[in-house]
Amino acid sequence: MSIIVQKYGGTSVGSVERIQAVAERVSGYLDTGHQVVVVVSAMSGETNRLDTLGRSVSGRPPAREMDVLLSSGEQVTIALVAMALQERGYPAKSYLGTQVCIRTDGNFGRARIEDIDTEALRTDLAAGVTPVVAGFQGVDAVGNVTTLGRGGSDTTAVAIAAALGVYECQICTDVDGVYTADPRIVDDARRLDRITFEEMLELASLGSKVLHPRSVEFAGKYKVPLRVLSSFEEGPGTLITIEKDDMEQPIVSGIAYARDEAKITMSGVPDVPGIASKILGPVGRAPIEVDMIVQNTGADGLTDFTFTVKRSDYDRTLELLAPVRDAIGARSLSGDNRIAKVSVVGVGMRSHAGVATRMFDALAAENINILMISTSEIKISVVVAERYLELAVRCIHSEFDLGKEPLREVETA
Amino acid sequence: MSIIVQKYGGTSVGSVERIQAVAERVSGYLDTGHQVVVVVSAMSGETNRLDTLGRSVSGRPPAREMDVLLSSGEQVTIALVAMALQERGYPAKSYLGTQVCIRTDGNFGRARIEDIDTEALRTDLAAGVTPVVAGFQGVDAVGNVTTLGRGGSDTTAVAIAAALGVYECQICTDVDGVYTADPRIVDDARRLDRITFEEMLELASLGSKVLHPRSVEFAGKYKVPLRVLSSFEEGPGTLITIEKDDMEQPIVSGIAYARDEAKITMSGVPDVPGIASKILGPVGRAPIEVDMIVQNTGADGLTDFTFTVKRSDYDRTLELLAPVRDAIGARSLSGDNRIAKVSVVGVGMRSHAGVATRMFDALAAENINILMISTSEIKISVVVAERYLELAVRCIHSEFDLGKEPLREVETA
Repeated sequence: MSIIVQKYGGTSVGSVERIQAVAERVSGYLDTGHQVVVVVSAMSGETNRLDTLGRSVSGRPPAREMDVLLSSGEQVTIALVAMALQERGYPAKSYLGTQVCIRTDGNFGRARIEDIDTEALRTDLAAGVTPVVAGFQGVDAVGNVTTLGRGGSDTTAVAIAAALGVYECQICTDVDGVYTADPRIVDDARRLDRITFEEMLELASLGSKVLHPRSVEFAGKYKVPLRVLSSFEEGPGTLITIEKDDMEQPIVSGIAYARDEAKITMSGVPDVPGIASKILGPVGRAPIEVDMIVQNTGADGLTDFTFTVKRSDYDRTLELLAPVRDAIGARSLSGDNRIAKVSVVGVGMRSHAGVATRMFDALAAENINILMISTSEIKISVVVAERYLELAVRCIHSEFDLGKEPLREVETA
Repeated sequence: MSIIVQKYGGTSVGSVERIQAVAERVSGYLDTGHQVVVVVSAMSGETNRLDTLGRSVSGRPPAREMDVLLSSGEQVTIALVAMALQERGYPAKSYLGTQVCIRTDGNFGRARIEDIDTEALRTDLAAGVTPVVAGFQGVDAVGNVTTLGRGGSDTTAVAIAAALGVYECQICTDVDGVYTADPRIVDDARRLDRITFEEMLELASLGSKVLHPRSVEFAGKYKVPLRVLSSFEEGPGTLITIEKDDMEQPIVSGIAYARDEAKITMSGVPDVPGIASKILGPVGRAPIEVDMIVQNTGADGLTDFTFTVKRSDYDRTLELLAPVRDAIGARSLSGDNRIAKVSVVGVGMRSHAGVATRMFDALAAENINILMISTSEIKISVVVAERYLELAVRCIHSEFDLGKEPLREVETA
């Protein structure tokens, strides 16, 4: 008999009907002899409702109180899911973050899990009771309620899975797995049977919304087998695993994109040491998150310095840099807030040269101009004009034959 | 500098605007040098919403999970009130029942407070921080969340006041005090400046909705001065105190009523020992709460047995008793579900004979037939047809001159 941790997100528990469906699904796993720990988010829309309520009371709501407020959302869901299981005759028991206990540091709103006490969970499982644990929330060393921030419930599930040493941690969501590209853009996008943690981490960081990068990182660190699958339909989903040496990897696993990007260019900057920090210093302190950074130096000793930020930070970044331009004697400050980032990810790139070339050629064949390039060991990202986004994703998907099942994928679900 | 516990009910924190008003009011007390512990209920309607949600998931929602579900209501309010205070520059900190901690027994849905740890509250108060505590909820010996049932937030406030040994416990609500009678029925109903715990307990038990009997009992037991006052308007409210020997008591302090009553009569019952328990046994086990019980024995050795129940239990009680009627050989089983109970309460009755006679005469003068009578040391209750309810309350109010300030009430607010 093996333990599975199953996490259900806000959409999956968004109504009484869906909560009943989740209970039905969990009971199916229990019937086949599994032990299940259920982790749930707040009902969809609830966290936003509470957040708005808090912000309507206070312009700068204190972080400690926001966490008390927001964590009430999961409290409702754990009770309802535990009820729905008991209604079906399956013993179940809800657990708040404070009750498990999920010990975190004291950083309200973005707390990190430090420790999980699994005793109560193990006792329940041994007694045939299904624990239903509140995701997203924890408790600090002095008893304050904390929340984990974006993607928090996924992280809770992975952390519990790691602490219990489970067979599998399942992230049940509204899509049936991880795809080679967004199926809304690419018709022949294909669900991946498996993908490595590294690839998933890149895809998640690069804009794929299926999993939060933090939970993937956590799962990779503790080697917790992670499976993304649909809450509503049967299917094997996508297994995220550690890379096996004997496994031949496809060159490219998937394509991610991020809309709502903007780029800022400081041109004609004297190329002297410390210029990068003079430009990025005020931006980072704002704090505005900077993504890609590119610097080219011309023959004239002047350099062009370009970086990307979220589109919502575009105007503010330009304002911040106007005085910097004057101070460092740059020729011009310009920008473009209609750009998008398209990335290809694959551990196979490590051993296959020419992936970048194939990608650039495919884009050139469609007359798509590349504005910026950034690479890492297993990914290549390009910035293009936003209007070319869908076309770019499609032509790269086609170039690498991602719609076709690779030969090595012989496992059946 | 003195400590005040202030409890705000659901209506008083029913919107963002009202929460701001509560924070404004609390800050006023802080400005005058008081230390305040705030106790709050869930926003009005919220507990019902959560209750409905639970019942839509499960026909017999498990009590442990209902308590987890319902207690999320106060969690929202404590965070919002603490935020609103901080927004005004007053340090504040929210506390869940588990955090205070308000230790209760393990009876979910109707837990009793056993102990309160005041250390955190005292530390906060000493540091100039206003604690905002969730009413209605606690934690049992093994860490389960519990709720206290109806009137629970009042009880939390009184229990904290008792544990801290405070100057006064204020129940801030949507009325400005305790009245001689319901002002919606009696035009010249008068707010009482003070009333004894005993009288308040009778009034609360007899249908006055201002305070829950449990909190009054608790306050009386621990001699916590309790004040009922408006959350929205200035005013002294009504102080509920222990009776002082040197204080001349008015004969009657107030009139309470309960609509939605029903009476059941089993007639022509053989008057033998054990008949009462044969009739009330099945009712009590249902469980249906029985209020007044009256038995008259005639010369024929047959007795009429009458008792009252909540109107919503009327049909079920009749059904339950039909087989009992046959089994004990009673002549008939009948009932009336259009009755109401009117009660006069006053500690002065102890030393003044003739209160009952004056009350009955007043009713007779209005041709109001009395269906049942029940008395205790400081109250007299009568059951009348529901259509006479308002008239009965008014004529009794007038008979005892309750609209006029008694001479002994010389204190000024």
